[in-house]
Amino acid sequence: MVLSVSKRSAVEPFHAMDVLAEANRLRARGISVISMAVGQPSDPAPKRVMEAARAVIDSGSIGYTDALGRMDLREAISRHYADHYGVDVQPARIVVTTGSSAAFNLAFLALFDAGDRVAIASPGYPAYRNIMGALGLDVVEIELEGEAYLHAAHLRAAHAERPLKGVLFASPANPTGAVVPESELRELIEEARRLGIAVISDEIYHRLAYDSPDHTALAFDPDVTVINSFSKYYCMTGWRIGWMVVPEGLIRPIERIAQSLYISAPEISQAAAVEAFNATEELEVVKARYAWNRELLMKRLPELGFSLAAPMDGAFYAFCDVSRLTTDSMAFAKKMLAEAHVAATPGRDFDTLQGHRTMRFSYAGSHQDMVEALDRMEFWLNK
Amino acid sequence: MVLSVSKRSAVEPFHAMDVLAEANRLRARGISVISMAVGQPSDPAPKRVMEAARAVIDSGSIGYTDALGRMDLREAISRHYADHYGVDVQPARIVVTTGSSAAFNLAFLALFDAGDRVAIASPGYPAYRNIMGALGLDVVEIELEGEAYLHAAHLRAAHAERPLKGVLFASPANPTGAVVPESELRELIEEARRLGIAVISDEIYHRLAYDSPDHTALAFDPDVTVINSFSKYYCMTGWRIGWMVVPEGLIRPIERIAQSLYISAPEISQAAAVEAFNATEELEVVKARYAWNRELLMKRLPELGFSLAAPMDGAFYAFCDVSRLTTDSMAFAKKMLAEAHVAATPGRDFDTLQGHRTMRFSYAGSHQDMVEALDRMEFWLNK
Repeated sequence: MVLSVSKRSAVEPFHAMDVLAEANRLRARGISVISMAVGQPSDPAPKRVMEAARAVIDSGSIGYTDALGRMDLREAISRHYADHYGVDVQPARIVVTTGSSAAFNLAFLALFDAGDRVAIASPGYPAYRNIMGALGLDVVEIELEGEAYLHAAHLRAAHAERPLKGVLFASPANPTGAVVPESELRELIEEARRLGIAVISDEIYHRLAYDSPDHTALAFDPDVTVINSFSKYYCMTGWRIGWMVVPEGLIRPIERIAQSLYISAPEISQAAAVEAFNATEELEVVKARYAWNRELLMKRLPELGFSLAAPMDGAFYAFCDVSRLTTDSMAFAKKMLAEAHVAATPGRDFDTLQGHRTMRFSYAGSHQDMVEALDRMEFWLNK
Repeated sequence: MVLSVSKRSAVEPFHAMDVLAEANRLRARGISVISMAVGQPSDPAPKRVMEAARAVIDSGSIGYTDALGRMDLREAISRHYADHYGVDVQPARIVVTTGSSAAFNLAFLALFDAGDRVAIASPGYPAYRNIMGALGLDVVEIELEGEAYLHAAHLRAAHAERPLKGVLFASPANPTGAVVPESELRELIEEARRLGIAVISDEIYHRLAYDSPDHTALAFDPDVTVINSFSKYYCMTGWRIGWMVVPEGLIRPIERIAQSLYISAPEISQAAAVEAFNATEELEVVKARYAWNRELLMKRLPELGFSLAAPMDGAFYAFCDVSRLTTDSMAFAKKMLAEAHVAATPGRDFDTLQGHRTMRFSYAGSHQDMVEALDRMEFWLNK
């Protein structure tokens, strides 16, 4: 067969995943690699989550669930909105997804058609751009140029150029860790409403801000689409389980697409995630370690020549300007992995224009690993 | 916000999933529903699979894996091709996916661009049509008009009308259970190669043919894309774990898309699925029960007025012509669920043109449930 590959498969690789694959190859050869490349907590899921997983396995009853998810999990998520934000979100508006990855894909498919202009901030999470690209959306990357987050003015300017159909932003953000203050968040959402632009709020790093309370976009407009996940604060990356909150009118379109595209999220993970909201004590200990790691990186990275390029308000990333060390962060990251056995993500993932001068370090690992990684980097840089 | 829903979200619902959701609502009200609607084994995953799942949970090490999947699982799948088919498939060509659902999406995205013509048989699995529709493909539904499966001649005719970019077929097929004989399969694949049409072979019902050996499309052309899953024979639906075998040239495009669109398949399921190939003894007992159920349905469904519209060679479906009972199988299925508490899938899922006269019954449940369901249907029809 003459193989023809689609044009739309020519998306950028997710470089952090390529770094992960390379780190795994090195590990398979017996090399001790410290990975700060992927945004992945080194802690396992909380004990009661694992207990619930064992229980559903023992029950022998693991099957397709409703496409929108198990009702017990949707109800638990609904209670979380009441408890954590004081916002009323009925379970009917909650869609359980196979990680936030599925949630993004479903939101893009349900809200936008091919050719629609959708704005994101740059730097930003690369999968936004890559999924949108694969789905034929016209991705409008708004360069932050040193600003910490999107403002209403950015939105107005991009919309004035040619009308936007949607905007997607995250707070705390990946890779910058920036938190959008409440007043700015409200203004951004109100501006989008005035302009008739659909809002997708990525809240996957909620509960991981170090100095400020969480504000869900739902508090300012019940018709935004919110995406969240059990991967980050709840330490359940490999379980592939997340959720979205959608406006009434989007429930059935999303259900229809999800039925065919995903059938349902993995049921072990759904049953287990119900317990995630009851594990706050355990998870706050984990968060305290991130805060400790954060102090360390804030101090030592700049000493090593990695200037902080963003505020580190939340999430578990240090986003650095590496232009004092290299003009090509991709080559630099590869060399650092091969020689110092420390994996970090080249900025290209987050910013196609300016990414050659930046790198992202995840500090979701153990404190000992952070100390060791910094020592290795120092030794390597001084060679 | 003025909510605007995309045009492409106007895909057909997956009616079997709607029936499942309705059955779950009835069950939540304490009603005993027997579901023959969804293609889901009533048996749990094999014991050693559950054992492996418990072990990986206990290890506390559940995270993102390589986007292409864990190497131990890719190697186990590679051995399966040697053992079961005598075909050499290197692990590098195997992609672990979040169920066959993800595999279809990845194959369509990597092989085809919006507007490309891709042929499928009608009746056929509805998610083919729905996913293709959401991705902007031009779905060419070839009506089988009573024939059991696609022939090379069908392909030639559709291609002559306007060139096809791809063809997707399944053997054993859903909903018909039809198995394409070896010589016909070879001819179909050779014809596709001659015409320059990419082949996707859905082999999800392999190991579930009752009178004939399995033939993988890979035996006739190493450059086809094969999709398979642990959901059916291996009884792992809710685990959301499947795989694809792809031509060399498609590995990296699929890896790139999968990194952003899925990150990786759930790791508990990946670790557990490694053991699925070691559970043949247990799984053959399950298959023997399907065979027993099949005998029962073959006899009793026609007696009740549900004429068999397909051969029941494999899979676990009886596909029936219900035109003696109704002119609207959708309304009939809803009524049967509401009144007889037996769920089956209206033909509309599988065939938008002729589906009003057909229904599909899954016999992957317990034998007792099959007996009870047929009794309920008989009682209900005689009222």
